[in-house]
Amino acid sequence: MKNYIQADPWCIIEEGFDPKLNKISESLFSIGNGKMGQRANFEETYSGESLQGSYVAGVYFPDKTRVGWWKNGYPPTFDKVINSTNWIGIDIYINNFLLDLAKCQIIEFKRILNMKEGFLQRSFMININTDQKVEVHAIRFCSIDNDEIGAISYTIKLLNFDASIKIVSKIDGDISNQDSNYDFKFWEPVKDKKTENGIFLQTKTLKTGFELCVGVHTTILTDKISAEKMHSEFKHEIKFIAEEFSLNVCAGTEVKIIKIASVLSSLNYQVDQLLVNCEAKLMAAVNEGFAKLFKNQKKAWSRKWEHSDIQIEGDVKAQQAIRFNIFQLFQTYTGTDSRLNIGPKGFTGEKYAGATYWDTEAYCIPFYLSTAPQEVAKNLLIYRYNHLTKAIENAEMLGFINGAALYPMVTMDGTESHNEWEITFEEIHRNGAIAYAIFNYIKYTQDWKYLEQYGLEVLIAISRFWAQRVNWSQEREKYVILGVTGPNEYENNVNNNWYTNYLAVWCLKYTQEAMFYVSKNSPNRYQEIIEKLEFNQGESAQWKDIIGNMYYPQHKKLEIYLQQDGYMDKEQWLVKDLPASERPLNQKWSWDRILRSCFIKQADVLQGLYFFEDDFQIDDIRRNFDFYEMRTVHESSLSPCIHSILAAKLNDEARAYEFYLRTARLDLDDYNNDTEDGLHITSMAGTWMSIVQGFAGMRVKNDKLYFKPFLPEQWNAFTFHIGFRGNILSIKISKGFMEIQNKSNHTINIIVVDLDYSVAANNTLKIDLKV
Amino acid sequence: MKNYIQADPWCIIEEGFDPKLNKISESLFSIGNGKMGQRANFEETYSGESLQGSYVAGVYFPDKTRVGWWKNGYPPTFDKVINSTNWIGIDIYINNFLLDLAKCQIIEFKRILNMKEGFLQRSFMININTDQKVEVHAIRFCSIDNDEIGAISYTIKLLNFDASIKIVSKIDGDISNQDSNYDFKFWEPVKDKKTENGIFLQTKTLKTGFELCVGVHTTILTDKISAEKMHSEFKHEIKFIAEEFSLNVCAGTEVKIIKIASVLSSLNYQVDQLLVNCEAKLMAAVNEGFAKLFKNQKKAWSRKWEHSDIQIEGDVKAQQAIRFNIFQLFQTYTGTDSRLNIGPKGFTGEKYAGATYWDTEAYCIPFYLSTAPQEVAKNLLIYRYNHLTKAIENAEMLGFINGAALYPMVTMDGTESHNEWEITFEEIHRNGAIAYAIFNYIKYTQDWKYLEQYGLEVLIAISRFWAQRVNWSQEREKYVILGVTGPNEYENNVNNNWYTNYLAVWCLKYTQEAMFYVSKNSPNRYQEIIEKLEFNQGESAQWKDIIGNMYYPQHKKLEIYLQQDGYMDKEQWLVKDLPASERPLNQKWSWDRILRSCFIKQADVLQGLYFFEDDFQIDDIRRNFDFYEMRTVHESSLSPCIHSILAAKLNDEARAYEFYLRTARLDLDDYNNDTEDGLHITSMAGTWMSIVQGFAGMRVKNDKLYFKPFLPEQWNAFTFHIGFRGNILSIKISKGFMEIQNKSNHTINIIVVDLDYSVAANNTLKIDLKV
Repeated sequence: MKNYIQADPWCIIEEGFDPKLNKISESLFSIGNGKMGQRANFEETYSGESLQGSYVAGVYFPDKTRVGWWKNGYPPTFDKVINSTNWIGIDIYINNFLLDLAKCQIIEFKRILNMKEGFLQRSFMININTDQKVEVHAIRFCSIDNDEIGAISYTIKLLNFDASIKIVSKIDGDISNQDSNYDFKFWEPVKDKKTENGIFLQTKTLKTGFELCVGVHTTILTDKISAEKMHSEFKHEIKFIAEEFSLNVCAGTEVKIIKIASVLSSLNYQVDQLLVNCEAKLMAAVNEGFAKLFKNQKKAWSRKWEHSDIQIEGDVKAQQAIRFNIFQLFQTYTGTDSRLNIGPKGFTGEKYAGATYWDTEAYCIPFYLSTAPQEVAKNLLIYRYNHLTKAIENAEMLGFINGAALYPMVTMDGTESHNEWEITFEEIHRNGAIAYAIFNYIKYTQDWKYLEQYGLEVLIAISRFWAQRVNWSQEREKYVILGVTGPNEYENNVNNNWYTNYLAVWCLKYTQEAMFYVSKNSPNRYQEIIEKLEFNQGESAQWKDIIGNMYYPQHKKLEIYLQQDGYMDKEQWLVKDLPASERPLNQKWSWDRILRSCFIKQADVLQGLYFFEDDFQIDDIRRNFDFYEMRTVHESSLSPCIHSILAAKLNDEARAYEFYLRTARLDLDDYNNDTEDGLHITSMAGTWMSIVQGFAGMRVKNDKLYFKPFLPEQWNAFTFHIGFRGNILSIKISKGFMEIQNKSNHTINIIVVDLDYSVAANNTLKIDLKV
Repeated sequence: MKNYIQADPWCIIEEGFDPKLNKISESLFSIGNGKMGQRANFEETYSGESLQGSYVAGVYFPDKTRVGWWKNGYPPTFDKVINSTNWIGIDIYINNFLLDLAKCQIIEFKRILNMKEGFLQRSFMININTDQKVEVHAIRFCSIDNDEIGAISYTIKLLNFDASIKIVSKIDGDISNQDSNYDFKFWEPVKDKKTENGIFLQTKTLKTGFELCVGVHTTILTDKISAEKMHSEFKHEIKFIAEEFSLNVCAGTEVKIIKIASVLSSLNYQVDQLLVNCEAKLMAAVNEGFAKLFKNQKKAWSRKWEHSDIQIEGDVKAQQAIRFNIFQLFQTYTGTDSRLNIGPKGFTGEKYAGATYWDTEAYCIPFYLSTAPQEVAKNLLIYRYNHLTKAIENAEMLGFINGAALYPMVTMDGTESHNEWEITFEEIHRNGAIAYAIFNYIKYTQDWKYLEQYGLEVLIAISRFWAQRVNWSQEREKYVILGVTGPNEYENNVNNNWYTNYLAVWCLKYTQEAMFYVSKNSPNRYQEIIEKLEFNQGESAQWKDIIGNMYYPQHKKLEIYLQQDGYMDKEQWLVKDLPASERPLNQKWSWDRILRSCFIKQADVLQGLYFFEDDFQIDDIRRNFDFYEMRTVHESSLSPCIHSILAAKLNDEARAYEFYLRTARLDLDDYNNDTEDGLHITSMAGTWMSIVQGFAGMRVKNDKLYFKPFLPEQWNAFTFHIGFRGNILSIKISKGFMEIQNKSNHTINIIVVDLDYSVAANNTLKIDLKV
């Protein structure tokens, strides 16, 4: 737990420099634009502790799998988004002294992440050689308006001395991954070039052969010398190029370095066209100029905030935190490219390989559905649609047949990357989450075309998996699902995980409904799908049989759903009785002790009650919540939000707020001591859900937006922005009141605590909640 | 399945050379003496497929653990016996042609492993340069009489041409392991030296700092030149030395190379005394001369066979196989050093790291108990006694307290090496096997002193583990054991594995009995132990409670013990219905499919019925046997022997024989296509058990040897030798008769099929079994 970030409604601010916090700040102040991103490493040399990180979305490497003991079915490689060419580097020599904050006296230091306008700002004043004062101001951003462009403005001022300055503007492609299974390097050189428009470096990933071309144009501006006239020298080594500028500078003169970069990958260009396109893109950006690029960046962020901002009145730290979460989510994924997805650490670190998990479907889709145009969430679904063939192959590798699909636990391109049998082969509920996301998307958007065009094929393949994954227990005369790991990963290889069993049956039912819908509304397309997938009626009958005869573990006396068979054989402790010294369990206990204990990592039964809340009575939900929450250690950042939403549903406002707090500032306050590895991007969506689905109680019911709001007593009011079927609403919850501002040109019908309301176009409705 | 080994009662014979079989033969023809061993690699250069292997017992390296996903409690290293200095190499150049069987025409080739006399013999005739014929005869052995000495006699004869011959007698210490997690080399150089007595190379393992000194003395004898006169040149490189001899040889002249080696390790000498001792040992052996060393070798093996031979009449392949198994077991472990144990591959390959598994206690101890002096089995027990402190530390790492011990799954020096949570943390029945071995040893030997001196401390520590590993299930009002892996490793992380639960309670009961015995017979020692271990009466009371209230899963209707909770929820297939194309399952099925299936890898419930047969009614055993055997795929080489013994007990002689056949020639016929990796040493003990405990029905009952024999109808008779409390018996089972020859000087009382008999000293008793 740290507390060094200054509170501010729109900015993340660090004042003063503590080298011990640098890696945390590098994560927190990360910038990105969905296509590329970087940790907040310094432009100038820094020899202190640092995790250098520059990432390009979709550029990955199949690192050789490392396991102790091979199991049949393990994937041969672990695909990971890799650290790639670093274009931000600017070495500064002042009278041959290499500027390095680890090696000089720092008088002032300030780092700001401006979330409103989308840029990173840094300024510092230092002493070199006892009393030579130097001031630096730097601004950097990855353009969200022009997502192959990044820009830096870096100003140096010698305050009280004259000096010769050498400026080395670098492109470094000789990058290694901290996360490399066998310490391999993943990049090889292709070519480099200097033209009148800049310097260019093209490199290539081994094995996958992704090529990346980075071009940089550097301008030096001082009061005296104009950019065009300044001579530079071109340096190149293997996978590294630079331009060197030398000049003599008088005290008080500002030297401004404008470095504009274009970053293009072979994901979007023919490899032989990369360099020429990179140069053209760069030239265009240079012609626009830093000021214009910067202005466009601010505009683009303004548009994003209009759709997505949450204002919290009366709690500036909460305000800062929720905007931080929203900001980072949009820096990670912009939804313009269905080949991309959301890595758990985004572009802020290497952990979890930048790959796709079920986090996307369970946590991120609700966020993007409400805060971005419909295409954004749709592209996340199409990502999985495009991986369907590989999901079928993945299931085949495990022995499934007939077009059954098992989506991977962790993936870049649709193939499985994970290699723990208890997860890879057994945490199969992920397959259900992918079906649930389709349901959720259509419920929110009414985009039934999606079902016809894409969704139904995915649903059938997933249902085929479940139909083969169950088996008939003669003993129970029921279908059972053996050998699974539920969302609670503190249990492995259990039988009849209630959540998984319920989800499997739900998938079968929903697929049947979806088939019925498509057969009625698009009989031709339906026929096409049926033929393509060779679907036969026997399957339908079998699904019905499973739907009607699934076994669900329950505890009769306690009237709860049982997390899995045998759960009640465990020693029944409560989290409140766990000494603080033993937590977090995943650091303090051996794995077998965790497995044998009754303690739960994250919502499991409760995840099911959250997904399918309308299937259950409120008392049912309460009993399960009360039982399981007392046993839940929330050692996944994805856990508290589900509990917050359920607590809100159960009218337990205090606890809803308490759970919300657990993740709201998870990274800003370095709650788990791991922010230095990168940010918890996907759990940030959960924080958003706590406010919108929890505090505001937002749902879609009867095809309308539904709210059941409350205001945490720590706040004066909160306002959030929601897109719903092409309209944007601003919804404010204050003490006793709810205001719905309809920013669209149509009347909107909503439900608030079971009463129907209409809000006219461009109008605001204020509801007195106390009535 | 291969069929190229010629049948012979005392020899393993390969005639003709097939390079594709070479790695298999290298395993099969391995030689060793308990302290060192080697695969049957060629002395001369061989550029074809080969797995070079020389091993020194107890010299291991802690290879860095390789896992995909770290779990708390995993050991940081995997200790493995490593490939070490190769002293057998003799390069032969004939007119500058390097002799290499991969590069010349082979006219004749024969390899023989003489098991009666303990040596490896090889002869071949080749053509080089179209029609120059060369004949080679080689004999090699690792002296079992003088276990730091090995010797080679290598004779070359040019049949039809004169030539210059260069002989390079090598010591190669620049060895790498095939099984290295990160491709590291494990050895570094220390020094080398040539003296008038030979050449010497000393090397050292990284990290562990074991030092190994190998000395070699080479003599060249021809009709004309005596050894002393021949000049040699000394060559040395890093970790490699050699002596080169050059001579001109006429057609028909025999050139005999005698190479004697001494191999000493820092396990037994101060490092600074290694070389001097190595030289002294070598000098002594050279002075004895090859012929004398060879004679002693034959004598020593003759003594071993006297105690352990099994003769089978009427089935030469069976005869060959059982002697092969006995021979390899004695080559691997001689019982003179309690720091050593039995690696599953002995000195014949790198797989399973040459480390100790529960195989030792469950399978090997019964073999050595009956076929070798009592000290041999005792040293295997003391090995574990000496590891007690580490077993307690191992348990502490997993959260156990108060002197509870969990012995490692895989170990060299008492620390755990294995790194799969479902095995390392959960296959805890191994702890019970270690207690069972103490019980078994005392039952066989009546060496109660062992219990006082060593055994009781181990038993108490193991019982403390069980007492903490159970937990009380409020639900069942019984003690349960959750999250274990039984002997059937095709189930992981199950609850209430019947075998484990039964074994745990047995351990508690036996420990209580042992405590009672020691307290009565050695009250002082008892007091000493109680104080040392701080044992208190509360523990005793708790153990009683567990003993009285353990939960044992059962199936009431089928009247069987249930392998684990939920076993009957599985789809109930039988092995006979498994298509051949799907077997072995561990190669054909994904891991999750194996786990979900009802198929059993090796005896699990049945292992318990074998260990504790007297606790159960015969019908009980039959019902369980019939149920489980039909579901068992025997994909562990340790499985069939238990089934063979139980089938014999159930009077199912045909099946007892059928199970015996499955492992008897496992390696000789390369049944599992994996003999090239090394031999299945520990399962060889199981084959012995099938004959002695199975066919002869040997037990110890009421403190006497007990037999209930039958003769497989494929055999005319079989005779085995048994040591029992200082006496040696030769027992012959023929059609309808049993002959007991008492080779000792005391009368022996035995039981045969429930009748008591006396056999006078040095006398033979013939019993008519048909009566």
